[in-house]
Amino acid sequence: MDRTLGVCYYPEHWPMDIWADDAAQMVKAGLTWVRIGEFAWQRIEPAPGVFDWGWLDRAVEVLSQAGLKIVMGTPTATPPRWMIDKYPDMLPVDDQGRIRKFGSRRHYDFSHLGYRGEAVRIARLMGERYGAHPAIQAWQIDNEYDCHDTTLSYSDAARVGFQDWLAQRYQSTDVLNRAWGNVFWSMDYDSFDQIDLPNLTVTEPNPAHVLAFRRYSSDQVVAFNRAQVDVLREFTKAPLIHNYMGRITTFDHWAVGADLDIASWDSYPIGFLSDRLEGTPQEKQRFLRQGHPDNQAFHHDLYRAVGRGRMWVMEQQPGPVNWAPYNPAPLPGMARLWAWEAFAHGAETVCYFRWRQAAIAQEQMHAGLLRPDSAPAPALAECKQVARELRSLPAVGCAQAPVALVFDYDSAFAWDTQPQGADFDMFRLAFAAYRALRKLGVNIDILSPDASDLSQYKLVLAPGIMHLRNPLRAAIAGSDTLALIGPRTDTKTVELSIPTPMGPNIDGLDVTIALTESLPPTDAITLAQGGCFKHWFEHLEGTAQVFETTTSGQPAIMGAKNIRVLAGWPDDTTYVRILKDHCAEAGITTHDLPEGLRIRDTDTHRFVFNYAPEAQVWNGTTIPAAGVHWEAL
Amino acid sequence: MDRTLGVCYYPEHWPMDIWADDAAQMVKAGLTWVRIGEFAWQRIEPAPGVFDWGWLDRAVEVLSQAGLKIVMGTPTATPPRWMIDKYPDMLPVDDQGRIRKFGSRRHYDFSHLGYRGEAVRIARLMGERYGAHPAIQAWQIDNEYDCHDTTLSYSDAARVGFQDWLAQRYQSTDVLNRAWGNVFWSMDYDSFDQIDLPNLTVTEPNPAHVLAFRRYSSDQVVAFNRAQVDVLREFTKAPLIHNYMGRITTFDHWAVGADLDIASWDSYPIGFLSDRLEGTPQEKQRFLRQGHPDNQAFHHDLYRAVGRGRMWVMEQQPGPVNWAPYNPAPLPGMARLWAWEAFAHGAETVCYFRWRQAAIAQEQMHAGLLRPDSAPAPALAECKQVARELRSLPAVGCAQAPVALVFDYDSAFAWDTQPQGADFDMFRLAFAAYRALRKLGVNIDILSPDASDLSQYKLVLAPGIMHLRNPLRAAIAGSDTLALIGPRTDTKTVELSIPTPMGPNIDGLDVTIALTESLPPTDAITLAQGGCFKHWFEHLEGTAQVFETTTSGQPAIMGAKNIRVLAGWPDDTTYVRILKDHCAEAGITTHDLPEGLRIRDTDTHRFVFNYAPEAQVWNGTTIPAAGVHWEAL
Amino acid sequence: MDRTLGVCYYPEHWPMDIWADDAAQMVKAGLTWVRIGEFAWQRIEPAPGVFDWGWLDRAVEVLSQAGLKIVMGTPTATPPRWMIDKYPDMLPVDDQGRIRKFGSRRHYDFSHLGYRGEAVRIARLMGERYGAHPAIQAWQIDNEYDCHDTTLSYSDAARVGFQDWLAQRYQSTDVLNRAWGNVFWSMDYDSFDQIDLPNLTVTEPNPAHVLAFRRYSSDQVVAFNRAQVDVLREFTKAPLIHNYMGRITTFDHWAVGADLDIASWDSYPIGFLSDRLEGTPQEKQRFLRQGHPDNQAFHHDLYRAVGRGRMWVMEQQPGPVNWAPYNPAPLPGMARLWAWEAFAHGAETVCYFRWRQAAIAQEQMHAGLLRPDSAPAPALAECKQVARELRSLPAVGCAQAPVALVFDYDSAFAWDTQPQGADFDMFRLAFAAYRALRKLGVNIDILSPDASDLSQYKLVLAPGIMHLRNPLRAAIAGSDTLALIGPRTDTKTVELSIPTPMGPNIDGLDVTIALTESLPPTDAITLAQGGCFKHWFEHLEGTAQVFETTTSGQPAIMGAKNIRVLAGWPDDTTYVRILKDHCAEAGITTHDLPEGLRIRDTDTHRFVFNYAPEAQVWNGTTIPAAGVHWEAL
Repeated sequence: MDRTLGVCYYPEHWPMDIWADDAAQMVKAGLTWVRIGEFAWQRIEPAPGVFDWGWLDRAVEVLSQAGLKIVMGTPTATPPRWMIDKYPDMLPVDDQGRIRKFGSRRHYDFSHLGYRGEAVRIARLMGERYGAHPAIQAWQIDNEYDCHDTTLSYSDAARVGFQDWLAQRYQSTDVLNRAWGNVFWSMDYDSFDQIDLPNLTVTEPNPAHVLAFRRYSSDQVVAFNRAQVDVLREFTKAPLIHNYMGRITTFDHWAVGADLDIASWDSYPIGFLSDRLEGTPQEKQRFLRQGHPDNQAFHHDLYRAVGRGRMWVMEQQPGPVNWAPYNPAPLPGMARLWAWEAFAHGAETVCYFRWRQAAIAQEQMHAGLLRPDSAPAPALAECKQVARELRSLPAVGCAQAPVALVFDYDSAFAWDTQPQGADFDMFRLAFAAYRALRKLGVNIDILSPDASDLSQYKLVLAPGIMHLRNPLRAAIAGSDTLALIGPRTDTKTVELSIPTPMGPNIDGLDVTIALTESLPPTDAITLAQGGCFKHWFEHLEGTAQVFETTTSGQPAIMGAKNIRVLAGWPDDTTYVRILKDHCAEAGITTHDLPEGLRIRDTDTHRFVFNYAPEAQVWNGTTIPAAGVHWEAL
Repeated sequence: MDRTLGVCYYPEHWPMDIWADDAAQMVKAGLTWVRIGEFAWQRIEPAPGVFDWGWLDRAVEVLSQAGLKIVMGTPTATPPRWMIDKYPDMLPVDDQGRIRKFGSRRHYDFSHLGYRGEAVRIARLMGERYGAHPAIQAWQIDNEYDCHDTTLSYSDAARVGFQDWLAQRYQSTDVLNRAWGNVFWSMDYDSFDQIDLPNLTVTEPNPAHVLAFRRYSSDQVVAFNRAQVDVLREFTKAPLIHNYMGRITTFDHWAVGADLDIASWDSYPIGFLSDRLEGTPQEKQRFLRQGHPDNQAFHHDLYRAVGRGRMWVMEQQPGPVNWAPYNPAPLPGMARLWAWEAFAHGAETVCYFRWRQAAIAQEQMHAGLLRPDSAPAPALAECKQVARELRSLPAVGCAQAPVALVFDYDSAFAWDTQPQGADFDMFRLAFAAYRALRKLGVNIDILSPDASDLSQYKLVLAPGIMHLRNPLRAAIAGSDTLALIGPRTDTKTVELSIPTPMGPNIDGLDVTIALTESLPPTDAITLAQGGCFKHWFEHLEGTAQVFETTTSGQPAIMGAKNIRVLAGWPDDTTYVRILKDHCAEAGITTHDLPEGLRIRDTDTHRFVFNYAPEAQVWNGTTIPAAGVHWEAL
Repeated sequence: MDRTLGVCYYPEHWPMDIWADDAAQMVKAGLTWVRIGEFAWQRIEPAPGVFDWGWLDRAVEVLSQAGLKIVMGTPTATPPRWMIDKYPDMLPVDDQGRIRKFGSRRHYDFSHLGYRGEAVRIARLMGERYGAHPAIQAWQIDNEYDCHDTTLSYSDAARVGFQDWLAQRYQSTDVLNRAWGNVFWSMDYDSFDQIDLPNLTVTEPNPAHVLAFRRYSSDQVVAFNRAQVDVLREFTKAPLIHNYMGRITTFDHWAVGADLDIASWDSYPIGFLSDRLEGTPQEKQRFLRQGHPDNQAFHHDLYRAVGRGRMWVMEQQPGPVNWAPYNPAPLPGMARLWAWEAFAHGAETVCYFRWRQAAIAQEQMHAGLLRPDSAPAPALAECKQVARELRSLPAVGCAQAPVALVFDYDSAFAWDTQPQGADFDMFRLAFAAYRALRKLGVNIDILSPDASDLSQYKLVLAPGIMHLRNPLRAAIAGSDTLALIGPRTDTKTVELSIPTPMGPNIDGLDVTIALTESLPPTDAITLAQGGCFKHWFEHLEGTAQVFETTTSGQPAIMGAKNIRVLAGWPDDTTYVRILKDHCAEAGITTHDLPEGLRIRDTDTHRFVFNYAPEAQVWNGTTIPAAGVHWEAL
């Protein structure tokens, strides 16, 4: 298929008389798509029931006349100020009980049914007006769910909704009390309306209580999104999209994605490196102007799966942003590299954010393709280069990956709730496994925990999956695919208690976890074959074969048939060693990549990306810093 | 006397049909005691006035039939959910004004008289039912006062109670205004009901105001405990116990202990090392799986004194816990070492916590003697070993200690209120003195600030006692016991103002504090005889003799007769040097202990404990890591 | 003019019968001034409308009879407890929405008009009673505005006042919406009463909204102060003073100062070093007992300008204080050095705080000239030495400084609101420039952003001025004074949006900022001529001359005519190098000062201060640690 470029544009921010010129320049720059509308509710409906469609009709006409395809956004992330007068209790409440006020964005509670109705109302009106417009070839619903930690709200609306959800799920408080183990500290409830939200308790609340609230909250995101999906489907056949963010694990993206046609995400490599990824100061300095070399790929692979094969980058960082603690400029070339890396991972479209840097408000220090004075910003030339290159390069198709990594949001809820070690985190663990695979140069697919067919893969990893779902459990037990599970996989019931015996419950595998240890950063469990475990170590026992041991003789990897259980969390070097061995066993070719280089194979080409701040050599070819190289396979 | 082992058990968590087998296994493991009941209020009284005693009657029968002695706990740390409907204002409030909600434990306000009445009511009912049962040979009241910072509450109940307490203490606001020095910033009050709790003031409140609130709050713990003591005494002659925690200084344990028969405490060496003790990262890593080598001994000695000679460990860590930031497993052998160390310090009974690891709720990752699947956890074998050893070892009696250390909760309140240096803390100072003595291998007694007879001791330390009480003041002045006081001893009036002149006010001693300095961690005052003061330095003057000086010639130790005043807070090495000198002067034999070894003499034996993670040699005997050695004296 | 010493005194804290002796001793110590009254409202008016003037009349008589001049303070920083009953809503509210309660000081909201009326009422009563008293030769209004972060309050009073202020400023919400760019995220308002305070929003509020609230809050301080000025002017011709604090940038001191006759400040060099200045641990340890060697000079120069030439130190630290995290004693000699440094910078009077250390309440650990037991504290002898030296030294006059530094509170509001890099701060940037100049040994004047005449200066620095005001813009463009502006100068409109083009808008200068980068501490932009930029870097372009480049060839300094634009924030060494070059170009003599020495020229003498903890040599003269040297020019 054809890969395309796009850009985010806010006609409401600029004089109407420059729109046509903006559109012409976009086309000239090689852009195919333009996203509009997602924060414009107040301009569309300045007072309740009073509409001003004219400007938006005009913007659609101007852009489509220029030949651009439009992604129309529903503006539900920014309800106007009058909405708060209508529903004063729609504002979210933080975990300290403070109302999160109007004055920025995402000031709504996913549990508030009144606001949910308003969101459906405006989506319907937009669908009615624009659903059949030929230029509008995709819709974006809302904007960046959970951004600014907005999934969890501790409002009255959330409390009442949670109580209803619990009543539906458990039917009686007796069942709930047993499921949660409320006997433990006399925490039993007599009626559902006694069950408060699990914040501000004297000490930690029952983890089963917290997990239930996390699941409830995730379900509200799904329901909020689905309500708009349902109404838009009445008016349009264009694909429906949401733009997810990076490292958000507070709602189940698999479930939201199931209702949509394409998964897109907002890729801010430099901001994310600084504000949400672990790393030593040295690593953060080395990749300061490039972003983490594996973070974009991880999210491309994740969202390609969430989108069931269809993935976009809806917002691509073009220069310094405004929201990270520090905001340096990308290395020249990165705005091109990021786009190509996205295409190599299957992105259909990469939209830069935004066309022209705003001179006003919160994001005035966020770069665009143009400066506020309309002069070209550095990324514009790189965008044009990508556009040229796209014309000459054969269509980029996805290749079958030999390795799969299971990623489970429910486990992220569980480990947030009960980390047991302060630095145990689902994303961090999965990303550690992913990084090790990337260092070996293999293509990776990310799988939902509902996966039931592993036959396309030679190796599957499932670290930290709290409770294997039955289809996956059966698939692991019944396939020839080498499966490396653990640490902490299948160690909990669905209600976050301990199954007896504890440990992976897979047919043909006799491994029990006798004891669990979390390790402070100063500590490590050394392995007889080299390297060590950090963060986490499980004392395994059972009749399964011992494949590796610690230096003190405890099992480090046990297994039977095609299944291997990892007893701890390997550090980066050790993870690479272990996965290299498993790839070899599974018959997967691996590479020894120079520092900072990453590769990705499509069905026809091998792409090589240089994230290092200096040139690196690949098979005799020198690739400059921020360089992209491709060669036919 | 016979030293015994026990265990904590929650029959309500397990099917009734396994209780008998559990009891049989406990006896087989060498356990004498079993503690039950302390979180079971909801199971006893599932609705207000509706009782289900059957299961508890049965549990008592099963356990006693097996030959176990029972510690029965009053369940007042976990009032059921219906209690909150009855008394919505019984929930505690944190210092930021947030209600601390139901959903975990300790969700009650010590000041709430309605709830206090309920606690007495349930204690009475339990006393009536079980007070005469022959198997119930001890009672535990409530559980871990102050755990989760629950002594201080900023509720309306606390405010009203505090105002009454102030009215009782001062009789008139004129007296209070003068005592507190409210003239200072026009802070005078006209009536007691104007006096709010000392939180959320614009800048720091009057320290006298804070100290009064700390004393009031401590008094409420005493009163809450005493109310249950009083009612239980009507029904039982068995000893009454509370299980204190480690490093809790928010209420006066001497005062609570005065109403009870035995002081017990909950010893979690690994958790405490990580979450509440100072130490360098190197020290914390070295003792990661053993706990701090002096912390258990300190608390044994402290609580032996609080219990007026009778001390238990009510909860002994058996493996990884769930509540510290990181939760590694103990070194093999530590579950035995900790028990023996407790016995050597006079513990009558050591109860492991808990029998079987719970599969549910908050503490599901907290190890027990059994795993959730009923397989033995590592500590079980160590517990059995201790039981065997106890049978062969002569009864362990307490030896007279040559050194005493005064520990004062009122001073802890004072220095929390007015640290003057950010790291000045009563426990930290007393523990520094204690550690230095332990490195010298001497037995130590801890004394209440109400001590009035020092004649059994050759050396007494009284660091950081804000205001010496008259009996102790007289005892120091009138005895031959060498007394090392300071820093900061006797530097405040009882109302936390400065006496004139400032400095210890002891007959025959002329030492005045001319100036006080608190020192940041980067700074130190070096001493002419080697070493240095950290944290704190007082410029002493007066006619008393100068025993040591700083390198710039200021007094470091002054004194007269048997009294010495320490002008600063010695660092660890310096404290050892200074105390070695004082021990020599007092005629006390000291030892030069290998790193990680600690000794404790009973009346017949010397016990040697190896806290190091590697073997150490004591008098030619190699003691393995986590090893215990004893030899007849 | 004659330089004088004074002291702060609280007769209400001490028995009346020692006042006369205190006064006699003050005079004997060489003190000329005594400040009284500023916290005594409750003693003056113990109940609403009930007055006790007697003690204050007596104090005034006793002190004046001894020959002392009196600074009378209005006691409005400490309203009595009964005031809170009258105006419960006068208490300030913090940014988390918590009421800041009575019990310390500064417990009032600047926006509360009821309390403002009370402040005027008590000022009027004091003016009536003492305005004509010959001994009362100065008045202090209130005490330390903003101390304990009291400028910003998020109360209802503030909200309503802010809405009125906005209505006055913008006249219509349409104008406001456009000025703030509220279209950005549908943040438009329909009426002024919809506009809430900019705290607790879901994510950051519109920076224009925050800046408006900062300006509003600053205006309330001005108005509160002016209300008292206006009433006191009716009764006295004595100069009116406020005592500012160090590094306070939450209100516009230029605007407050415009209504007053003298600017005074409270100089706590050791406390400020520890609690509010940046510095490495090594620097903080080196100057632990001296304070930062440039901080006092900066504030002397700043407040001399705020006072339009008239400056006092109203409170001079004499020994350890009570409020910093750690409170060590000054090096012997510092209490003298600080006083002389103040005089050399133009201070008319230096008052030590306080006469006798209080034995009570919050500041009982704050040293005075006397100890609580009335023995002399170390600073008393130093105070007497200064008094002797003042008698022999010719009057100290101010010399014309060759360099000026513009300091703008409005920019401090702006960069607090939108730092873009986490460590970008107006004071920090201005102080970096100041420090570099001080290392070069030049006299410095600080200028208001309203400055319009630069003709007395050879060099003017204007770093970080968000928006140059027109008179200064014109003065820079129209003078021969070498002007070094940037980084970040003139980069915003007055409403905190981006002007187009971005960059300094000065006639004859063509420099545009193409891109802005903030840099984490690990990063730096190296310069071809040596050194580097930290924190901040702007990509400059335009037709102006390039004077310096980075090592990668980008402009580091550009300029035209007398104007130079600095593209980044030089690190300390680099700033010295760059300013040395610019001083040379401007014909200003610079010095190469030994580490820790600082100089200041008066019209007749050169003063040399040794802040180092060891002796240093100046022109062959050895100056001991904490030493002061002067030589005729």
